[in-house]
Amino acid sequence: MIYLDNAATTLQKPQCVIDAVVRAMNSMGNASRGAHSSSLSASRVVYDTRCKIAKLFGCSRADHVVFTCNSTEALNIALGGLFVSGDHVITTDLEHNSVLRPLYRLEKEGIISLNFVPADVKGRPDYSAFETLIRRNTKAIVCTHASNLTGNMIDLERVGRIARDHGILLVVDASQTAGAVPIDMERMNIDVLCFTGHKGLMAPQGTGGLCIREGVEIRPFKVGGSGVHSYDKEQPSAYPTRLEAGTLNSHGIAGLSAALDYLNEVGIETIRSKETMLMQRFYEGVSRLDGITVYGDFDFERTAVVTLNIGDEDSAIISDVLYEDYGIATRPGAHCAPRMHEALGTTEQGAVRFSFSWFNTEEEVDEAIRAVAELAES
Amino acid sequence: MIYLDNAATTLQKPQCVIDAVVRAMNSMGNASRGAHSSSLSASRVVYDTRCKIAKLFGCSRADHVVFTCNSTEALNIALGGLFVSGDHVITTDLEHNSVLRPLYRLEKEGIISLNFVPADVKGRPDYSAFETLIRRNTKAIVCTHASNLTGNMIDLERVGRIARDHGILLVVDASQTAGAVPIDMERMNIDVLCFTGHKGLMAPQGTGGLCIREGVEIRPFKVGGSGVHSYDKEQPSAYPTRLEAGTLNSHGIAGLSAALDYLNEVGIETIRSKETMLMQRFYEGVSRLDGITVYGDFDFERTAVVTLNIGDEDSAIISDVLYEDYGIATRPGAHCAPRMHEALGTTEQGAVRFSFSWFNTEEEVDEAIRAVAELAES
Repeated sequence: MIYLDNAATTLQKPQCVIDAVVRAMNSMGNASRGAHSSSLSASRVVYDTRCKIAKLFGCSRADHVVFTCNSTEALNIALGGLFVSGDHVITTDLEHNSVLRPLYRLEKEGIISLNFVPADVKGRPDYSAFETLIRRNTKAIVCTHASNLTGNMIDLERVGRIARDHGILLVVDASQTAGAVPIDMERMNIDVLCFTGHKGLMAPQGTGGLCIREGVEIRPFKVGGSGVHSYDKEQPSAYPTRLEAGTLNSHGIAGLSAALDYLNEVGIETIRSKETMLMQRFYEGVSRLDGITVYGDFDFERTAVVTLNIGDEDSAIISDVLYEDYGIATRPGAHCAPRMHEALGTTEQGAVRFSFSWFNTEEEVDEAIRAVAELAES
Repeated sequence: MIYLDNAATTLQKPQCVIDAVVRAMNSMGNASRGAHSSSLSASRVVYDTRCKIAKLFGCSRADHVVFTCNSTEALNIALGGLFVSGDHVITTDLEHNSVLRPLYRLEKEGIISLNFVPADVKGRPDYSAFETLIRRNTKAIVCTHASNLTGNMIDLERVGRIARDHGILLVVDASQTAGAVPIDMERMNIDVLCFTGHKGLMAPQGTGGLCIREGVEIRPFKVGGSGVHSYDKEQPSAYPTRLEAGTLNSHGIAGLSAALDYLNEVGIETIRSKETMLMQRFYEGVSRLDGITVYGDFDFERTAVVTLNIGDEDSAIISDVLYEDYGIATRPGAHCAPRMHEALGTTEQGAVRFSFSWFNTEEEVDEAIRAVAELAES
């Protein structure tokens, strides 16, 4: 199988990640729940991983790195815990349902009012709208770092400047970029960064989290056992415990820790260069074919994603044939990005997404190009 | 190290569990997010595991098995999604903070009123109170299956009958019993069963869930990507998707699946017999020593937990010495069970918990007895 669905989850993990999970499953107790070596070793790995994440994303405090089971949970925590009645929130047409649905819920409950920065037919956000949509009660801009559908990135430095100039928060969904693209919370003026472990970070499923800038207050989402302050009726107020109830996935976090070491060793820029090269090679190979529509903007910074359709064929059928006849794994359909499909005009057809990882090869890309060419001809 | 902190997390996992996680990390895509073999294999493992969990706990529908990252999350989902303004809830003094804090929060928000079934100095619940506390607006009894502090179980068949007779829901925290004690939602009349994977089920950390009886409606807690109905503004209404947003921890669930096979192969009754034998052996060894106070009721069904103090020594000091001088891992302090400590009169001292697993041996128990005897003498 040629696996080109890395924007859903990176199938291949570095061997050191798997080894770390195995070691953890053979030795780790419950983090922060005792003073014996197995509990302490879990606590240590968890703390070290907070430090590594803080360093990777430019978060000033390791204790403001909160672990969750994926970025959806991180986004639910952030969006559920930041806003109060009467707040106004700005988001974009590029968002995934993990941003949209929490915001729609808050809007329906009458807590927030919501405006969207529109995207054009190439999936590009209208940057001027970030500023013109701001009202006196705007509390935050919530936006993705990159569309999971087109791969197009949002210029966070630009959006961050707007947020800072108007004294509003910037909450970022980095699901598509964490590990794959350099992120600096300081430089980009990000207040809350939500990430997942199992995509660009090449860590196990069941890992993720959020990084919170000093001074940003997020109310608890889940509450429960914390291993400290057991006699308080409320969740302890200090981060990260405030947002982490119950036993952490230390086995997965040990894998994340190893993945972060691997990323540092190889270098995110090196990984990004290779992934960009693969994406570009594929784009050049398919975009010149007749009958192919490629979506998104290829003149601006992007992740290693190419999304296309062949004629007016349903994307699910194309994706099935690619897998059944060519052994190429892609992802068709809506990709949980309804407003992006509306902007692209692909609500009915969906689109076939090819997404590349560090472990893909040029030969795999060329095979995928040949497969698309054959399908476009037939 | 002699690991006797299995009520916090079972340190030793069956080898087949580790192997299954490794296989999953080498082959699994994102469950329900595509139609290629790696995504389908993840979907299949997840669905098979739902079936196995449903069978284990007597849940009539596999699609009413919802996966979470631990039982705290399961309890937050259940308690956060069941009640409406004006509901009355009955719970017990035996509860862990994973039950108490979600309920305290609902009480503080003015949504529910709350009453506690008291526990006596042996940690036994007053069964008559389950019935006398019921009011016309009582919506549910929320109770643990076994105290994480004393190991004493609650007779769920008895409580379940009371709940059924009065037409109220029974929500059970099975963190201490799932995998270690037979549970039958039908026979026990349980409406919602919350469990964790990393304790008695001997699965990886980052796994757990809830089983929901047909007809019980729980509102979504987290919302986001679901892989289906992407154009709906709200989370899809069908279980399990209603309560599962974002990418599942399929790697961990693969381990849980293998753990369930292992449990079935060995037999829960066999495991329970051995664990009970170890617990009983330890209890008999330490309870006759001078200066030892053992907590809880040993004349009633219980898990493999023995909790004690030595004289009036702080439990944290005893636990430290046990580890430093004897290499025995236990857990001291409050164990996130504040009301249970109040009932036992151990709020200041805490208590040292010894908890046994399938992988412990009689020799280890005897060493632990010798260590406690030496400490009691000195």
